[in-house]
Amino acid sequence: MKYYVGIDLGGTNTKLGLVDESGNIIFTTIAKTDSIEGFSETIKRLSNILKAQIETSNVSFSDVKSVGIGVPGPVLNNRIVKFWANFPWKNGVDLALEFEKNLGIPVKADNDVNVITLGEMWQGAGQGYKNVLGLAIGTGIGGGIIVDGKLISGLNGAGGEVGHIKIEHNGKLCGCGQKGCWEAYASATGIIREAQSRLAVNKQNLLYKMTKGRDLEAKDVFDAAKQGDKFSLGIVDYEAEKLALGIGNLLNILDPEIVVIGGGVALSGDFLFDKVKEKIKEVAFPSTLETLKIVTAKLGNDAGILGAAYLGMQG
Amino acid sequence: MKYYVGIDLGGTNTKLGLVDESGNIIFTTIAKTDSIEGFSETIKRLSNILKAQIETSNVSFSDVKSVGIGVPGPVLNNRIVKFWANFPWKNGVDLALEFEKNLGIPVKADNDVNVITLGEMWQGAGQGYKNVLGLAIGTGIGGGIIVDGKLISGLNGAGGEVGHIKIEHNGKLCGCGQKGCWEAYASATGIIREAQSRLAVNKQNLLYKMTKGRDLEAKDVFDAAKQGDKFSLGIVDYEAEKLALGIGNLLNILDPEIVVIGGGVALSGDFLFDKVKEKIKEVAFPSTLETLKIVTAKLGNDAGILGAAYLGMQG
Repeated sequence: MKYYVGIDLGGTNTKLGLVDESGNIIFTTIAKTDSIEGFSETIKRLSNILKAQIETSNVSFSDVKSVGIGVPGPVLNNRIVKFWANFPWKNGVDLALEFEKNLGIPVKADNDVNVITLGEMWQGAGQGYKNVLGLAIGTGIGGGIIVDGKLISGLNGAGGEVGHIKIEHNGKLCGCGQKGCWEAYASATGIIREAQSRLAVNKQNLLYKMTKGRDLEAKDVFDAAKQGDKFSLGIVDYEAEKLALGIGNLLNILDPEIVVIGGGVALSGDFLFDKVKEKIKEVAFPSTLETLKIVTAKLGNDAGILGAAYLGMQG
Repeated sequence: MKYYVGIDLGGTNTKLGLVDESGNIIFTTIAKTDSIEGFSETIKRLSNILKAQIETSNVSFSDVKSVGIGVPGPVLNNRIVKFWANFPWKNGVDLALEFEKNLGIPVKADNDVNVITLGEMWQGAGQGYKNVLGLAIGTGIGGGIIVDGKLISGLNGAGGEVGHIKIEHNGKLCGCGQKGCWEAYASATGIIREAQSRLAVNKQNLLYKMTKGRDLEAKDVFDAAKQGDKFSLGIVDYEAEKLALGIGNLLNILDPEIVVIGGGVALSGDFLFDKVKEKIKEVAFPSTLETLKIVTAKLGNDAGILGAAYLGMQG
């Protein structure tokens, strides 16, 4: 049996896992990333944790064929991290090479949402499909585009940066500094912004009562809406409309078989997606909707490890 | 030497050509499509014209290896035309099979703008690139997306239907029946609509004088603007802004190496594109612009034949 390492490199924690060729997870472990100690030192420590963990398993290191890594940032040629989001590391470093030095087997890296989408295609909600649009809707909106089984990473590693398509000219300010980005409207942050803006002029609602005296979360809006709060239902409608606008645009460009949506906002499931499917008819080309599936991601925290393992496996 | 047929099937005329493996055009000929005579009859007649033309050339039919066809409509599996734009033919017919019956060699079909983009990549403005976004901006806006040398045709043949991404919620009515489509703003038709709308309230300008008593064309707007007409320059700015909005969105999704723009609007060249390049900075992710080229298509009327020949050649 052949085995593959998947690593989900995060700003705070790094998940490391070993997967067999059928997608069974042999182990996963979590380590503090502690990127502050420096690029080479951190990679060395994480590599040692990985090797130690493999030694305590029943798998021989010689049966481990490759390593895949998901990274929060754009990656060039499956090796170079163009820039790091929330890491004090130099931009443009060869992350794959650094792991290869320590582990002695081939390493491939890609953007984390790209990797998650691969995982969902291999073992999750996208199983059986080769043309998959993956969306991670949380603080921002990330995208992974798979065509014919392969990721579109783009010339500058910016393929799938769908959170920054503009859905309104000179619209809401986005964290990226530009205006009118999709994620400024349809991410969890976008929901919170819209809710706060509406609450400033309307306090006669359940959402206000529920969240008085504490920070509002996107989940609160869905919870209040599910209890019938009209005010919150209006915000969910707004969210569905903005989601439909971005997804519909992507359908017109990519015409995929399935859209797999993960991240915090996806947890509201069909309560939100049923509205999205209705509103998307005004945006997407009818033929793109004929057999399209829009589903919730299934793998949760394991998506990053499984996708990274699969990335390495693709050779 | 091996030879390849390229066919550009149009509503009025059909261009047929023979190309060698290096992209040299042996001949091209134009025939009336006359689709009214029926699907099988038209294909048979066009096939006979092609065979007769090859006989009068120095090429033996046995050296002709394949046929490629560009079609105004979405094509499934390089064979089936999902629906015909402006043809009285049944939707869902196997166009490739019908030509194969008459010609006895393998046939592949794809959407016409997809095929043109292939042609520009092979022999035109996109030569040397493998990740190309092709745009045809005329009456509408069509798109062809090539990733790693291969077209993204989409599950329903709707890949690259970029003219119908929405750039404004509940915006201008589009010919497709939906609202806010990119082509409702940035196509030649979009320019004419905007010019007519502005002319209704301002007749103190060169454009009005130039076009009084006849139909206005998009070209008039550029001609007047080049002569310094402020009114027309305002419309060109509008066009540049809308073009930048759509192209910028596509860059954030696909991150290509080069954008090749054809169609009537592209004839205005750098006069328009320089403004687009300026405005696109507010839309596209900065990393997608680092090495990006935006250029005018080079092949003109030959793009369809060369691209179709190359489509068939790809086997």
